Amino acid sequence: MADLGAIVRDIAEEMRALPDKGKVADYIPALAGIAPDRFGMAAVMADGTCHKAGDADVPFSIQSISKVFALTMALGAVGDALWQRVGREPSGSAFNSIVQLESEHGIPRNPFINAGAIVVSDILLGRYEPREAIGEMLRFVRALAGDDSIVVDEDVARGEQETGYRNMALANYMRAFGNIRHPVEKVLGLYFHQCALAMSCRQLALAGRYLMARGQNPDTGRSVVSPQRARRINALMLTCGHYDGSGEFAFRTGLPGKSGVGGGILAIAPGVASIAVWAPGLNERGNSLAGTLALERLVQATGWSVFEPGLGQAVVV
Amino acid sequence: MADLGAIVRDIAEEMRALPDKGKVADYIPALAGIAPDRFGMAAVMADGTCHKAGDADVPFSIQSISKVFALTMALGAVGDALWQRVGREPSGSAFNSIVQLESEHGIPRNPFINAGAIVVSDILLGRYEPREAIGEMLRFVRALAGDDSIVVDEDVARGEQETGYRNMALANYMRAFGNIRHPVEKVLGLYFHQCALAMSCRQLALAGRYLMARGQNPDTGRSVVSPQRARRINALMLTCGHYDGSGEFAFRTGLPGKSGVGGGILAIAPGVASIAVWAPGLNERGNSLAGTLALERLVQATGWSVFEPGLGQAVVV
Amino acid sequence: MADLGAIVRDIAEEMRALPDKGKVADYIPALAGIAPDRFGMAAVMADGTCHKAGDADVPFSIQSISKVFALTMALGAVGDALWQRVGREPSGSAFNSIVQLESEHGIPRNPFINAGAIVVSDILLGRYEPREAIGEMLRFVRALAGDDSIVVDEDVARGEQETGYRNMALANYMRAFGNIRHPVEKVLGLYFHQCALAMSCRQLALAGRYLMARGQNPDTGRSVVSPQRARRINALMLTCGHYDGSGEFAFRTGLPGKSGVGGGILAIAPGVASIAVWAPGLNERGNSLAGTLALERLVQATGWSVFEPGLGQAVVV
Amino acid sequence: MADLGAIVRDIAEEMRALPDKGKVADYIPALAGIAPDRFGMAAVMADGTCHKAGDADVPFSIQSISKVFALTMALGAVGDALWQRVGREPSGSAFNSIVQLESEHGIPRNPFINAGAIVVSDILLGRYEPREAIGEMLRFVRALAGDDSIVVDEDVARGEQETGYRNMALANYMRAFGNIRHPVEKVLGLYFHQCALAMSCRQLALAGRYLMARGQNPDTGRSVVSPQRARRINALMLTCGHYDGSGEFAFRTGLPGKSGVGGGILAIAPGVASIAVWAPGLNERGNSLAGTLALERLVQATGWSVFEPGLGQAVVV
Repeated sequence: MADLGAIVRDIAEEMRALPDKGKVADYIPALAGIAPDRFGMAAVMADGTCHKAGDADVPFSIQSISKVFALTMALGAVGDALWQRVGREPSGSAFNSIVQLESEHGIPRNPFINAGAIVVSDILLGRYEPREAIGEMLRFVRALAGDDSIVVDEDVARGEQETGYRNMALANYMRAFGNIRHPVEKVLGLYFHQCALAMSCRQLALAGRYLMARGQNPDTGRSVVSPQRARRINALMLTCGHYDGSGEFAFRTGLPGKSGVGGGILAIAPGVASIAVWAPGLNERGNSLAGTLALERLVQATGWSVFEPGLGQAVVV
Repeated sequence: MADLGAIVRDIAEEMRALPDKGKVADYIPALAGIAPDRFGMAAVMADGTCHKAGDADVPFSIQSISKVFALTMALGAVGDALWQRVGREPSGSAFNSIVQLESEHGIPRNPFINAGAIVVSDILLGRYEPREAIGEMLRFVRALAGDDSIVVDEDVARGEQETGYRNMALANYMRAFGNIRHPVEKVLGLYFHQCALAMSCRQLALAGRYLMARGQNPDTGRSVVSPQRARRINALMLTCGHYDGSGEFAFRTGLPGKSGVGGGILAIAPGVASIAVWAPGLNERGNSLAGTLALERLVQATGWSVFEPGLGQAVVV
Repeated sequence: MADLGAIVRDIAEEMRALPDKGKVADYIPALAGIAPDRFGMAAVMADGTCHKAGDADVPFSIQSISKVFALTMALGAVGDALWQRVGREPSGSAFNSIVQLESEHGIPRNPFINAGAIVVSDILLGRYEPREAIGEMLRFVRALAGDDSIVVDEDVARGEQETGYRNMALANYMRAFGNIRHPVEKVLGLYFHQCALAMSCRQLALAGRYLMARGQNPDTGRSVVSPQRARRINALMLTCGHYDGSGEFAFRTGLPGKSGVGGGILAIAPGVASIAVWAPGLNERGNSLAGTLALERLVQATGWSVFEPGLGQAVVV
Repeated sequence: MADLGAIVRDIAEEMRALPDKGKVADYIPALAGIAPDRFGMAAVMADGTCHKAGDADVPFSIQSISKVFALTMALGAVGDALWQRVGREPSGSAFNSIVQLESEHGIPRNPFINAGAIVVSDILLGRYEPREAIGEMLRFVRALAGDDSIVVDEDVARGEQETGYRNMALANYMRAFGNIRHPVEKVLGLYFHQCALAMSCRQLALAGRYLMARGQNPDTGRSVVSPQRARRINALMLTCGHYDGSGEFAFRTGLPGKSGVGGGILAIAPGVASIAVWAPGLNERGNSLAGTLALERLVQATGWSVFEPGLGQAVVV
């Protein structure tokens, strides 16, 4: 097998040459202005090596990828009681759908669609003051990545707040069912700031290491979550991480992954690598077009599907 | 770690003692008559060893588990062209829901809900004469299991045919969209017979070995499907194998699995084991209650989640 | 006010000159072959006078308009017990939608969508042998119209039967819920034949007189239904007679009406007139485009809305 | 026929004796505190006579009945352009459903469900300053009723505002589609105040006279709306005035009507009477239980269905 660094660089080159790169999210100016031909990729291996290519050190808006970190924090705060307020099933619907909330009485299908992540924000506000909560999350993500330079992009946060009518609708709707318990503005304040976290592929891949490493932060050796919880977060990422494109992503890559509307994807090859990719053009389901293809290529070249026998044995270097 | 044979036997004992065993399917007499306290389990390892307990050699109606074998055959017959007629997304709905077919123009969400499996039957009828098709499938499953004693339970097939109004509705509905191309009676004739395959846990686990072994039949060394296709079928089982309980099953076990209304589940630990379990009592989503719990226990004891680093290395014996 | 005969002739002329006449139903050859510029209109007054224009004596396929006569027969057969199996609410959905049947357990919203009319056919089969039922309906409609020359168009009936997969789906689906009790082929046999009744505008307007005349057949003076039941059938026609275009039709004409995919509409001005119009081109909701417009013009010219004070006093002649 | 005053009094007596009076709305204290055995009824005839019984002079919260007056004002302000932003079809869904808004891109089905009425409020804010708008509506309703003592119940308005999360969800959701154009708080401020109008049956029946009288205010002889628009508002009331119970109401009474969650119903017998009834206990669809029954009795006794030939001729006195 080719050298992994070369694989990553080849993929970046192929992606840069793609004729159709999808459509950049344009609902806020701070995202609409991103050049569609940006592409970055970083794979942090179990041993700490990082293979990267393209714009792997350029920060971008991680958006819904933050839902993985928020869920991890909220599980730490309230444990499995969280699952009384959020489901664990793929929704079969778009990221911002409100339809199921009506028939399912305000309980969102999973923590990785907007409605579910808003409930997770509400749960965090039961633990932290609104003013503190985003700071806590920033500290958490910085510690995971081992990088104190990660920040919230206030332009993005402001843009979300000014246009987030669907999310306001979702939050108010769930409040009507009693599944949002703090003032909607505060819940969404936290949610919009978390979505506005700006990270590079390298930082994101570093932050995702605990999900590849049985729940441990390799920098500190400390447990972020239990091995079982790490497996379960991965399971949720595989079944629910790409909205109504989750099945397709699992079919094509075989990796737990979480996408964001900023064009990023975090994917986990348990025991092997934490991988982040960024390509701002989206496919028709709101997931990164070239990012998905890049991960598919990576799995073809390396065999890093969770469905591949002996994943974690045959690690390339 | 404890000896695997002992683990399987302990699980069987625990399951037999469960106070609530769920509700046995009762829509046809041949299923309604099954005793709810039946329990069998068999795990066939990569090296061919088989660990089993309880009623592991008693044949039961595999029902929807047959969808895995039918999909495999149909992919062999027409290749990826199949995906123009069936999707690859979790449905978020019950096994026999007709709702999505209306807005999605007769294209079922995936091959593991009834509508999708009926399209797969229709595809097989493009390759085999109706009279031959069920014989072909029987030959196929017998070859996979290395066991010529597997049969179709004609009582069950007849029962399905007499009560299968929902499936007739699904088939006619898709025919209205042009996604069923053969006469509905013939398509359903094949579908009902395939669902009526009677297999024991041991036979089922043997038949599933190609999905653990990169697509190869270990008996013959011959390729049943390519390694990539084996990974992809596993991915579909993980995201779609338990209807609107698929996310929950993935969350709890971390294994690709396919359930049937007869109470069986086939689960795959790639590179490690093909596992079949049978407990006829169902949970509220139509999946085996004790069967799911048994697989959760097995994963807890063995670490055989696909999300566990190094699965396939630490094989217990 | 102008003379009513002149009004009807002027409308016919205006309709013939319409640039866009809509799209003729093309799911069966016997309908697809109808020339889109056909237009007929007939208004039978309380005193028996008939004003007509255009193709008012050319028989066409009345299709879903037959649902009014079938409902009337079924109410005669089983009385208000019928309403335990069919609702009385507008569906808000297309004529052949299956979606609501799932959440509403096989009870169709009203007797004027396909699903509801199929249940009405099933109810009639509880009273008449399949072989007799269509003969009974023919006798009933002939008596209402006072015209023994009305027939079933067997070409149309055969066409429906050969392509009616959606209706087969609806019938099987409701049978799964126990709301169809006779063999699906027999229920649909009756349904397809009833839809294939061929009537001219004049015959249809004559057949509808009992709905304008407090339930009486003016020819015989005999009660077809009670005055209350006549009012209620009119109410159902107003709220449900045009599928998901019912509100629009009521808004524009203010008349109880029932449309058919053959391009006919029967409309009732209680105490004043029974009106039939035929224009085969359909709008996007499957209702006659020029037919609806013609009735709107008629109401503008005559004030025959049920919401007009004193309707029935100011009858023009 | 009995004297109409006696009919109204008999109905009031029968309703007071009803064993099951339904469930009083309890989502705000100001409504929850209303005694369930309240009953009032007032029928204002074309000649100005008023027949009343029970609590016909006790003001109650008219709630959604205000949607009729708001629609009338908004049609006066922008004319039929209003229909580009609100539909005219029965919804087939509950009063506060959000489901259809998703598939129908933020266009509510009709102006008498909450979402539609919120758009109507937004349209009024295009004409009046927020601070003025509720004053204008109050002036309008007072002029219609010829009664300057009508007020807004501020307790009710405050209660709505504090608990109106579903309405906030609806408004924000439609704002995401661009169908709400003013700040959500201001739109809902108007909406909640309009719902909090307190009127007695007598005042309400007086205010509804223009809908019986071809659009004229009988006090002033001035046109409130054109005769055609009066007919059309009546048509909308008949098809959409009782949410997903509209078909049933039309079937049972044959009258255009609009219900409110406070237990009131305004019903119109064109040319004959404007009728208001109040009974705070609701049926399972959120419409007044005894109010509906009272109107059904009234129609049985008087024949005032719009589907009755010659309505407006046979006026009882």
